[in-house]
Amino acid sequence: MITILTGGTGGAKLVWGLAQIVPPEQLTVIVNTGDDLNWWGLHVSPDLDSVLYALAGKLSRERGWGYEGDTFRCLERMNSLGADAWFQLGDLDLATHLLRTQLLSSGKTLTEATAELCRAMEVKVRLLPMSDDPVKTVVTTPAGDLSFQEYFVRERWKPKVTDVKFAGAEKSLSARGVLQSIIHSDLVLIAPSNPVTSIGPILAVPGVRDALKCTPAQVIAVSPIVCNDSVSGPAGAMLKMRAFEVSAAGVARCYADFLDVLIADLQDESTRRQIEAADVQAAFTNTIMKSDDDKIGLAKFALSTVSREAAR
Amino acid sequence: MITILTGGTGGAKLVWGLAQIVPPEQLTVIVNTGDDLNWWGLHVSPDLDSVLYALAGKLSRERGWGYEGDTFRCLERMNSLGADAWFQLGDLDLATHLLRTQLLSSGKTLTEATAELCRAMEVKVRLLPMSDDPVKTVVTTPAGDLSFQEYFVRERWKPKVTDVKFAGAEKSLSARGVLQSIIHSDLVLIAPSNPVTSIGPILAVPGVRDALKCTPAQVIAVSPIVCNDSVSGPAGAMLKMRAFEVSAAGVARCYADFLDVLIADLQDESTRRQIEAADVQAAFTNTIMKSDDDKIGLAKFALSTVSREAAR
Repeated sequence: MITILTGGTGGAKLVWGLAQIVPPEQLTVIVNTGDDLNWWGLHVSPDLDSVLYALAGKLSRERGWGYEGDTFRCLERMNSLGADAWFQLGDLDLATHLLRTQLLSSGKTLTEATAELCRAMEVKVRLLPMSDDPVKTVVTTPAGDLSFQEYFVRERWKPKVTDVKFAGAEKSLSARGVLQSIIHSDLVLIAPSNPVTSIGPILAVPGVRDALKCTPAQVIAVSPIVCNDSVSGPAGAMLKMRAFEVSAAGVARCYADFLDVLIADLQDESTRRQIEAADVQAAFTNTIMKSDDDKIGLAKFALSTVSREAAR
Repeated sequence: MITILTGGTGGAKLVWGLAQIVPPEQLTVIVNTGDDLNWWGLHVSPDLDSVLYALAGKLSRERGWGYEGDTFRCLERMNSLGADAWFQLGDLDLATHLLRTQLLSSGKTLTEATAELCRAMEVKVRLLPMSDDPVKTVVTTPAGDLSFQEYFVRERWKPKVTDVKFAGAEKSLSARGVLQSIIHSDLVLIAPSNPVTSIGPILAVPGVRDALKCTPAQVIAVSPIVCNDSVSGPAGAMLKMRAFEVSAAGVARCYADFLDVLIADLQDESTRRQIEAADVQAAFTNTIMKSDDDKIGLAKFALSTVSREAAR
């Protein structure tokens, strides 16, 4: 059994890679919902959608988010009606949010709605939101607090970040299956997602960090930092804000209380000692996922790492 | 001041014609909302939308409903996700329903949401729902009760109709401005819409029928029946079900308690005596609105009718 904790972009790629080599019934994906937003009255779960679309083979390769081959006619119309239009929902994508919102309105939990969307898209991997409760990632900037999407999409992650909070996390309950799958897996992977704003909200849900500490599973993370910079997005700036070095070693230290192994990029092989200084084993491979082969290659490497570690 | 009571199809054409020859501030349009439905969690007001789109010059000429040049990508996706897809919302059309639903969720009334949509579409005519309260047209068939859209769209108005009810009408309040505009107009027009399921719900809102009876305005209807058949839709079947003759005279009798003049088609000129037998004046012109000229021509005729009648 394998459990992976993930955000949207890089994580979705690795999840897809894993799904190509692991039977779906052996894979549980726990997804950040701190970025969820109410948009045009619809419940939008950007990370859940990225992973869902990736698993269905429908994540837009061109954009890296949203539905393959989508159009934006409704969005353009909303814009001309004077509605906010900085968060882009495509016409095909809209169907996902309409259906999810309807399911939630009818009393289903986000976990149940996600399962229903998986069934409708013939995705057999178990996809779980970190929580059915609202947890909101709040990014503090000198100009005030922003929701994650306001910071990331509307402001194109330009503002200086002075703090990140997960509003509602303390009172949230992990979704059914989250703690169980961490505890009962042979391998728990932390995807190469932003450690602060993608993995951070999941870790902020009560019980998750403790489950990672006490699970008998190997806990292996893939570094989203290569050569002292984020592969994509504001992971670097976020680590710095949290006073971690922007490096694979910084990622290792960020997860040090529960991490067994950090998989870092071959380009960072020289940093093995710094990673191990955090009491984390280091393993190196190509972590940049451009092609499908890259994604499958990284997934295979992660699985081989756990075998090697188990043999020690 | 002119007030027009209308449903969607034929009525929207006449409203457009009127708007071409009457300054917008002199025109109030009171629209049937008995067909409104919750679709995919959105508040859809088919007749309000038809009139709104017609006034904005955006009603699809090809289909007679929905937005000009619309596409149906979200609908196709909803269909493949297993959602109901028999009621067709286009990608552009969706924006209207998303915005309306958001406005209603934020506490606005349907009247206020409609005004906001009018502003956004630069429609200056006053467009009013008959009521802000839910009034549901229920069509009774041998197989059971159907909502109007289930009967009209899903079942393509094939089932035999044994009764039509307006659930909630008794307790509904007319929208702000409805009774006032009927009372304070010089002319009240009843559009060539279905007398039972389009005009009927408006008349079922407490106070509307009384206002029509006591208004000093001329009340003039345009017959939706030509040569003993509906111009479009199930008006004929509905009149028969209510034990009215399927003819211009039947329409006159249906409205006889408040109607001053019935405008019927030239093809029905021979029925003048039957119309007048209902104590309703008859006037004849071309009522089939195929071209824009037809719509403007009928609107002009209606205005000239009131002048002639006033001169008597």
